[in-house]
Amino acid sequence: MRTGPEMPLSENGIVRWLEKRFPGSPRGVRLGIGDDAAVIHPGGADEYWVVTTDMLVEGVDFRPGWLRPRELGHKSLAVNLSDLAAMGARPRFYLVALALPADVTEKWVEDFYRGMARLGERHAAALLGGDLSRSPSGLQITVTAVGESRNRRFLRRSGGRPGDFLYVTGMLGRAAAGLELLRRGITVGRSRAERSALEAHRMPEPRCAAGEWLAASGLVRCMMDISDGLSVDLPRLCAASRCGAEIDAGNLPLFESARRWGADPLELGLHGGEDFELLFAVRMDAARHLERLYPDSLPPIRRIGRLTGTGRVLIRHPGRPPAPLPPLGFTHFRDAHHFSRAPRSARAARQRNR
Amino acid sequence: MRTGPEMPLSENGIVRWLEKRFPGSPRGVRLGIGDDAAVIHPGGADEYWVVTTDMLVEGVDFRPGWLRPRELGHKSLAVNLSDLAAMGARPRFYLVALALPADVTEKWVEDFYRGMARLGERHAAALLGGDLSRSPSGLQITVTAVGESRNRRFLRRSGGRPGDFLYVTGMLGRAAAGLELLRRGITVGRSRAERSALEAHRMPEPRCAAGEWLAASGLVRCMMDISDGLSVDLPRLCAASRCGAEIDAGNLPLFESARRWGADPLELGLHGGEDFELLFAVRMDAARHLERLYPDSLPPIRRIGRLTGTGRVLIRHPGRPPAPLPPLGFTHFRDAHHFSRAPRSARAARQRNR
Repeated sequence: MRTGPEMPLSENGIVRWLEKRFPGSPRGVRLGIGDDAAVIHPGGADEYWVVTTDMLVEGVDFRPGWLRPRELGHKSLAVNLSDLAAMGARPRFYLVALALPADVTEKWVEDFYRGMARLGERHAAALLGGDLSRSPSGLQITVTAVGESRNRRFLRRSGGRPGDFLYVTGMLGRAAAGLELLRRGITVGRSRAERSALEAHRMPEPRCAAGEWLAASGLVRCMMDISDGLSVDLPRLCAASRCGAEIDAGNLPLFESARRWGADPLELGLHGGEDFELLFAVRMDAARHLERLYPDSLPPIRRIGRLTGTGRVLIRHPGRPPAPLPPLGFTHFRDAHHFSRAPRSARAARQRNR
Repeated sequence: MRTGPEMPLSENGIVRWLEKRFPGSPRGVRLGIGDDAAVIHPGGADEYWVVTTDMLVEGVDFRPGWLRPRELGHKSLAVNLSDLAAMGARPRFYLVALALPADVTEKWVEDFYRGMARLGERHAAALLGGDLSRSPSGLQITVTAVGESRNRRFLRRSGGRPGDFLYVTGMLGRAAAGLELLRRGITVGRSRAERSALEAHRMPEPRCAAGEWLAASGLVRCMMDISDGLSVDLPRLCAASRCGAEIDAGNLPLFESARRWGADPLELGLHGGEDFELLFAVRMDAARHLERLYPDSLPPIRRIGRLTGTGRVLIRHPGRPPAPLPPLGFTHFRDAHHFSRAPRSARAARQRNR
């Protein structure tokens, strides 16, 4: 019933179809389909409320042998809190739907929830409930997170304008460097760099405080989180903002230590995915002000380029003219098939373990 | 990593562990883990907000050959709206996380969303967004639904007292009668009764209007929806209300037509599951008042027994003393294994197709 000679599925394509099928603004909705999260305004509420749902599928998003149950619990919530961070929202609640294979033990489930709860508690997000089901195949985890705006401010992907400066938080490519280690069978880090990379892959830190601050600053025009890799997510920001972009390879905050295990930090940083850093645009004339105000206590931000009026996404390598940035990051319906091959080539590092 | 000689998982057991691990009332939470849905109060909001998440797993909750994509879309949302109905909440929004196998086509996805949207629109519930992922095995669907209380009233499973009368809406066992037809290879109804049973299984109608009315009436003490069968769900209501119950087999609103295909309407009605009717308790001295006020336009309600002080759940068959009601309805971690056997015995009808 599902087969037929059809076009391959495209995540962006389905989302575009949904946007057309469900147009307009239903009552109470401030932002609907197509961004990192949806924004609603409960009648009378002081704040807007931000809702997002994200799924982790065994064999697509993770391999259980590579993550302990606590780490998987952490990561399942982290990817959702990162969507709240991308809107500038403060986490408040979450729900968890778990489909469990027959070999999962009670202890496994408890450890999973412990890892999740620990991250939730650090962000003052409370578990509200969920659903439990048997799975005939692998583990499947769906988390729904609910957050709250600050002073009804939130940031979307749209709103950037040509000339705006582009920034990212933290570092790009560290999680992919950790994945590269796991692919080679290195599950326990033997150096600080290896431990740092493995940790970034297993227990990503959602940038909630930075997201909140950036939204509250009033200086940021648009924002999203980088989950599928800069080369895939930057074009999404550009499409929503109807801009192009030009980034400078020399300015990217890369995980240089990845060279030690033969990986290319630039490739990882552009196409690696799962860093869950924030990508945002700032009016040119507000950029210096924002950089001055931005607190030292938050993850560092780095200017990586700017939005342009061309509609193209380009990268400038030192001493060369700008070239198109190929979207080699992770997209679910193109790359997932490659997962089971677990290639060890340089190309592997460009593909996300999902 | 997940294996080991452990106790088999129990859904009730995990929920009890979670209740212990996450005690207290986090800020803004009116009702947390363990009921049909959670209830929160966004700061300043006129109403309480009700949130629930429910998952449908291929091979456990459904067989794709038995439901068209539109029907599966309908059903995935219906089971969630039913949880809102169980709290007396009015549906407002929903999110959908879909894990899709490689053979799913673009048309399949669109039809799925069409079926879902149609039900959503009838209940004024708007699609807010979701997540799409590849699945290496079967389809997995997780819907999160958000509803709104009316005048901050909502009903929980607890609150019933010995002596309260027990009621159900609609009819019990019709969805299970439809499942029984599907098990026998009858996918197209050949009579009105068969079509009605198949429809109940494929496109259950969440009792939102009845739920809202019952909560608003102020006459109902506790409520839940019957998703896993009366014999499994009634003990849950009793446990939450710290009561026992005695129901009268002769008073159950059964789907008598199931006899025509050799199924026992009483067995289906007690253990069948997936009817998504409401089960609720009413103070004895308010019962007649409620029956008089209850609108004809809503699905009929039927008094099926009462809560007792014994802690036991009993059933009275005509001319016999009350006997314990065995919990033979569907529970995920006991019966799911039987699914693939697809037995055609009388016992099969007692097991839910999940």
